[in-house]
Order: sequence, then structure tokens, then C-alpha cells
Amino acid sequence: MKISDTATAGISISVEELQLATSNHGMPLEALRYAVTPVGLHYLLTHFDMPLVDPTTWRLRVDGCIERPLELSLADLQVMPATTRVLTMECAGNGRAMIAPRPSSQPWLVEAVGTGEWTGVELRHVLDAAGLTDNAVEVVFTGADSGVDGGEMHVFQRSLTVDTAISSGALLAYQLNGGPLPPQHGFPLRVVVPRWYGMTNVKWLTSISGVDEPFNGYQQRQSYRLRQEADEVGEPLSRIYPRSLMVPPGIPEFMSRTRLVSPGPCDLFGRAWSGKAPIAAVDVSVDGGTTWAAAELEPPTDPGAWIGWRFLWDAGPGDHELCCRATDAEGNTQAAQPTWNRGGYVNNSFHRVPVQVLDG
Amino acid sequence: MKISDTATAGISISVEELQLATSNHGMPLEALRYAVTPVGLHYLLTHFDMPLVDPTTWRLRVDGCIERPLELSLADLQVMPATTRVLTMECAGNGRAMIAPRPSSQPWLVEAVGTGEWTGVELRHVLDAAGLTDNAVEVVFTGADSGVDGGEMHVFQRSLTVDTAISSGALLAYQLNGGPLPPQHGFPLRVVVPRWYGMTNVKWLTSISGVDEPFNGYQQRQSYRLRQEADEVGEPLSRIYPRSLMVPPGIPEFMSRTRLVSPGPCDLFGRAWSGKAPIAAVDVSVDGGTTWAAAELEPPTDPGAWIGWRFLWDAGPGDHELCCRATDAEGNTQAAQPTWNRGGYVNNSFHRVPVQVLDG
Repeated sequence: MKISDTATAGISISVEELQLATSNHGMPLEALRYAVTPVGLHYLLTHFDMPLVDPTTWRLRVDGCIERPLELSLADLQVMPATTRVLTMECAGNGRAMIAPRPSSQPWLVEAVGTGEWTGVELRHVLDAAGLTDNAVEVVFTGADSGVDGGEMHVFQRSLTVDTAISSGALLAYQLNGGPLPPQHGFPLRVVVPRWYGMTNVKWLTSISGVDEPFNGYQQRQSYRLRQEADEVGEPLSRIYPRSLMVPPGIPEFMSRTRLVSPGPCDLFGRAWSGKAPIAAVDVSVDGGTTWAAAELEPPTDPGAWIGWRFLWDAGPGDHELCCRATDAEGNTQAAQPTWNRGGYVNNSFHRVPVQVLDG
Repeated sequence: MKISDTATAGISISVEELQLATSNHGMPLEALRYAVTPVGLHYLLTHFDMPLVDPTTWRLRVDGCIERPLELSLADLQVMPATTRVLTMECAGNGRAMIAPRPSSQPWLVEAVGTGEWTGVELRHVLDAAGLTDNAVEVVFTGADSGVDGGEMHVFQRSLTVDTAISSGALLAYQLNGGPLPPQHGFPLRVVVPRWYGMTNVKWLTSISGVDEPFNGYQQRQSYRLRQEADEVGEPLSRIYPRSLMVPPGIPEFMSRTRLVSPGPCDLFGRAWSGKAPIAAVDVSVDGGTTWAAAELEPPTDPGAWIGWRFLWDAGPGDHELCCRATDAEGNTQAAQPTWNRGGYVNNSFHRVPVQVLDG
């Protein structure tokens, strides 16, 4: 057995990026086998520190442009009608480490994704109970996590338009996969907006406020926008671009992660998702993207969840680059190469998995 | 507010290391607040891929130098007497990223630790049931995970001497924190050896074999040994060296992880552990290790678990480097700087946390 030297080209990351990479984590790709990602394997991006919240004294305030301001305990929320949904969540920075020149931030490769079974109250029920006033244009979600980013000290906050808040199916989730929300996923309560990128899903919620002008906080104004130039306003990120990933076949080499595959029939499996429209097709290439063939798709489940795909490959000896690409019903698809932007966002270029098929 | 430029010096890591860092993960230091680490926050080091094991067909074979070879189902193990222990587990490579020159491997800073409430059968009960023959000198644990390391294709295996296997209190664990073993921690069964480094705790166990000569597999012979030269036999790693860590006070800057602290009384808290002897003292320095004062220790719980410590600091404005160091009852302690070795193992030098105390 020969192990070819196919390690990724020698780009390097800084210690600051490493500090982010060791405390945050992606989903190991073999976990694509699970329709619902087990707790601890779902991707995790914590901007600041996880706050420690005492659930007995914790309250959710609903205030601002509101007719009946509320202070809700966890028990108050748990007696409201509960909804459970299987939803795929992805970081808007997924793929950042493969963008050149690479912005300095959490250096994701492709694994910043996961699918959870989220249980909670639909946001619209809470907003109905509180009554948004007619002048409300957005709803601001505030977490208990604070820190400094871009030189600004702030509490993590994001907003949604009133229309999205009501019509998106957003949940105020207090359970993940049938258990209490784990601390790292926002205990005791987070918002989960189906089909939107992860930054939307504010963790450790402390308040929901109606506001009469568009929210302009750091994480809305500065982060999570597509920009070519620093002084651009930029296009705000919202719903997830299409992506497909595969379980890398065969076995890995510890350090290089090079894959070794036995020759013969090889069952390729993965998942695909898009926040913009249902997945219409997944194509697979076994020659680095030169030729493509359609994968078989599993039936869809929740419109906010990924779907499984499968492709039987007859693996012949030698080096191959496997690729997959998803296309959604609106024609959004994945490209061969990333489109550069300052924040290193939405690099949804093909998933590429170099493999070495053994001689047998 | 001024944010000082105290980012760590610009060392860099390779993409291969990044691939390891994004799929493995450490315990965010604020999770030191939990005596038992919540699932998903415990450190995780997966050498190859997580195998998918069907618990209905899975069996544990007990064979080799054995009088009564066994094939045990999960149900067979679950009707044997159960033991639950709170045990601290640490990767032998914790601290590797701060060793210079740094060996190329999983680039841990200091977070490769966690404490679990492990439930299972004591290994000695299973060995009693099977009956080791008189010629057995070691017991070999085999996992279901395979790959290539150091040019050798192998299944992950480690051994213990018969004496350690029987007297260490080793568990065959099928539960973590009161739930089934998560896939990433070895579902359906792993061995957990109190006070030993993590590599000992073979995940996804498929067999336990008595052998009549010392086991010589890759993970025993080549990995996990202290070596200065490549051709040395090296000292095998076993029980955990003492270490203490603190919850970084204040709030972080997203990218640099620089800590900003309010002036005045600041309650420093952390945990300390040693696999060699009980913790006797934890000392804290607020001036980079020049002067030290004793922290208050919480009472010990399980002898295999970390203990809490606390120190009240009167934080004055300016830049400070906080440090902590643990000393155990045998006098083992932590040094100011790492001791270099080829594998980058057991860098248990002081935990250092630079902070900037604001002017108020």
C-alpha cells in the first residue's frame, strides 16, 4: 500500500484563528449519516463566551413597540402550544478557510452545519400575545452574551422584519433533540428561523423588542454582509445558499485526512439543502467536476431540513477527486470556485473530496 | 475604551492541522463552571472516522488468553452490576500548539479536557467472568475505528497490563451523563480508565483480548511516548500530569480573544486535576508568575475528578497576566515553560490568561 502525498496546499492560519477553531467546532462529515445530528456533533459558533443562565430567575422580556409588554418564564413558554421541527442550520462563514485571500475569522472548511430537532413556541404566538403596535417595523432579539467585535463592545443582537418574524415559522426553542437546550446552543431559549443562516438564531435570549426603525447594531450593520469594499453598505445575508456534502468514503490518514478507498462498488452518500427553495437535484462528479451524473434523492421531510442523496460509484484504482453540487427549484446552484467577499461568507463551491483508490 | 493589541505572537498552523482542529474540539474554558461537563462541551479527539455501530448486532468479544471466551451484547453488560463515576479526561496532547518547534498533529491550546459522569460495568467483573489465564500479561482493547497513521493502516488499539486492568477501576462505559453514550464518545461501549490520558479510553470497543506478551501496535509503540529522538523507545504515557485552568474573567474580543475586565473585586474560578495523586494546592499569580498566592480549594469528590478552586482578585486598571498552577500530594506541579518532546505531549505549563482591566 502506497500513501500518496495529496495533503492540501500549505496555507497557514494564525493563533487567533486557532483559538476560535478549538473552541468552536464543525460537524465531522461522517455525521452526515444522521438525519438529525446528535448533540455534540452539530456545528457550534460562539461569538463571545457562553453565559451561565439560572433558569429559575430567567425571564424573556417582550417590549418596545408592543401593546402588552410581557415577562415570560420558561414555564410560561412551555405551556404555550409547542411545535417541533427538524431544521438544518449552517454558519454564513462556512467555507471561509478556502477563500483566498482569506479574511481573518473563524476558519471553517465545510463542516459548519448541523440539523436539529428543535421544539418550542412559534414566535408569532408570542408576538400575537404581546401585540406589535402599528409603528413596529422590525423585531430585535437580544442574547445574554457580550463582548467586543470590530472595536465595539456590545451584547449579541440581530433583527428580523415584522413580516419575516411572523411568516418565517421562527421558533422560540427550549428543546433540542428532545432534551433541554444544551448550554452551548442557547439555554434556556433561542430563536431558530427556518432556512436562515446561523447568526439569525440568537442564543441565550433575554428580550424581543419591537422597534420603529431598522435595527443598526454591529452584528446587523457590520457583520454578515456581502461586501467587496470596506465602506460599502453591503448586501445583508439571510437565507441559506444551496450546498451539498458527502460522507468521505473509505478510511482516513490521521494527519493529512487523505482518503483510502477499496476498489469496486462504492456507495456515496450525503445531504443537500438550500434555504431559498427545495432541492431539485444533486449531481456527482468523480473526475474533479469535468463530468457529472445525477444522484438519487431521498424524499424531503421538513422544508427547512436537508435531504439525503446517494450515488453508486464503481471505484477504479488511482487518484480521483469526488465532487457534489446541489441545485434548488429556483435554479440556485453551487459553483466550481468561491466568489470572493471581504467577510468570507457563503463559499458554497462544490464539495471536493480527493480519494486514492487502492489496487485491491 | 481602548483595546490593546495583545494578540498571541504570529505562529501559524497548516491546513492539515486545521482539518483536525475543525472536526475535533476542546472544551470552551467557561465550561469549567460545570463540575460535570455537558455533552457537546467535553473535549473530543477522533483519530479516524466515527464508525456507525448497530447496537442490535454489536457484540463485545472477550478472547485470547481467556478461560471462558465471551460474546456479550449491550443487554448482557447492562444487567451486570453498574458503577457510575465522575472522571476527568484529558488528551495527552493538550498544550501541543504552544510547544516550539511544534509537532504537526492536533493543535490543542489548553482546552482538551472534560469531566463526564460515566456509567458502566467495572472491567474487572468482565475479566473475572471470562477468567484470564495465567500466561496473560496484558489486555488489548480494540475499537471499530480504522485508518492510517505513520504510514501504517490499523484499527485503533491500546493495551493495559493485567494489574492495571484489574486495579485501576477501569469501566466499560455505556452511558455518559445519564444518557446513552453519544456516537462521538464511543457508542455503544468504551473503556474509561480513571486518571489516565484519553488515548487509553478506547472508543467503539469490539474486543478485549488477553495476550501473553506486551502489545506492540502503532498507538502503543509509536504514539503516546515521550521522545527526544525519533529512534528512541520512549517513555509511554499513562496517568495525567497535574494541570489547573481558570475561567477567563471579563468579556472577550471576538477575534483576538483578548479579555476585558472591570476594575474591582474579581472572583477567579477554575478547576485542577492530577492523575498521579490528589491535588494538594492551587496557586494563582496576577503578575505573570512572579508572585503567587494560594487559592481556596473545594472538597474533592471522585479521586478521578477535578476539583474546583477560587481566588478573589482585586483587579486594578492596566494589563495583567493571570496564571494558575496545581501541585499534587506527590509534589508533581506545573512549570513556567513546556518541556519539549517530539510528540508535543503533556505540556502542562501554567495556564496564562492575559487580561486588560479597564479604567472603570
